[in-house]
Amino acid sequence: MIAKTPPPPYFAVIFTSLRTEIDENYSEMATWMVQLAQEQEGYLGHESAREGVGITVSYWKDLESIRKWKAHTDHLLAQKLGREKWYRGYKTRIAVVERDYEFEK
Amino acid sequence: MIAKTPPPPYFAVIFTSLRTEIDENYSEMATWMVQLAQEQEGYLGHESAREGVGITVSYWKDLESIRKWKAHTDHLLAQKLGREKWYRGYKTRIAVVERDYEFEK
Repeated sequence: MIAKTPPPPYFAVIFTSLRTEIDENYSEMATWMVQLAQEQEGYLGHESAREGVGITVSYWKDLESIRKWKAHTDHLLAQKLGREKWYRGYKTRIAVVERDYEFEK
Repeated sequence: MIAKTPPPPYFAVIFTSLRTEIDENYSEMATWMVQLAQEQEGYLGHESAREGVGITVSYWKDLESIRKWKAHTDHLLAQKLGREKWYRGYKTRIAVVERDYEFEK
């Protein structure tokens, strides 16, 4: 789905990743993290697709809500397991969305 | 691939889209647009995946290079055909990447 976000400015976390061949608990953890993120203060929405590379963009009200989500205990565990098992590489980019526009048929 | 971008700040264009069932010339145009974007002044890299929703993030040196790319004649044609044929909806977000970090095994 295309995330329904409020008018800018708001923040985006662009998480781009390459997986290992280890699938153990990955999809369960991914589902859990999506659920948990949605419950966080300041969460605005997210978009996700994997095709070779995986791209997940989550949208947030402010830097403080991103900082808190990054430091959430369960999320810290997911990050640790991610580095140990599921990802062979990733890049996280924190950005301010300044402008957006859309098209719908 | 995960795009190799220079240290922030730089700009990101997050293009999220939903396709129609019309495939006519879509992949040729997509390939052409990637080639053309790579030749533009200020282009830094891009990442792309489609899994239900399509997410393409392209990275740029500054707003001026994004503006020029948006207004490029061939790209304008692709945008027009996109709205007429290939996309049933999309959202484009222009953002400033302020911070990034990465992990590699």
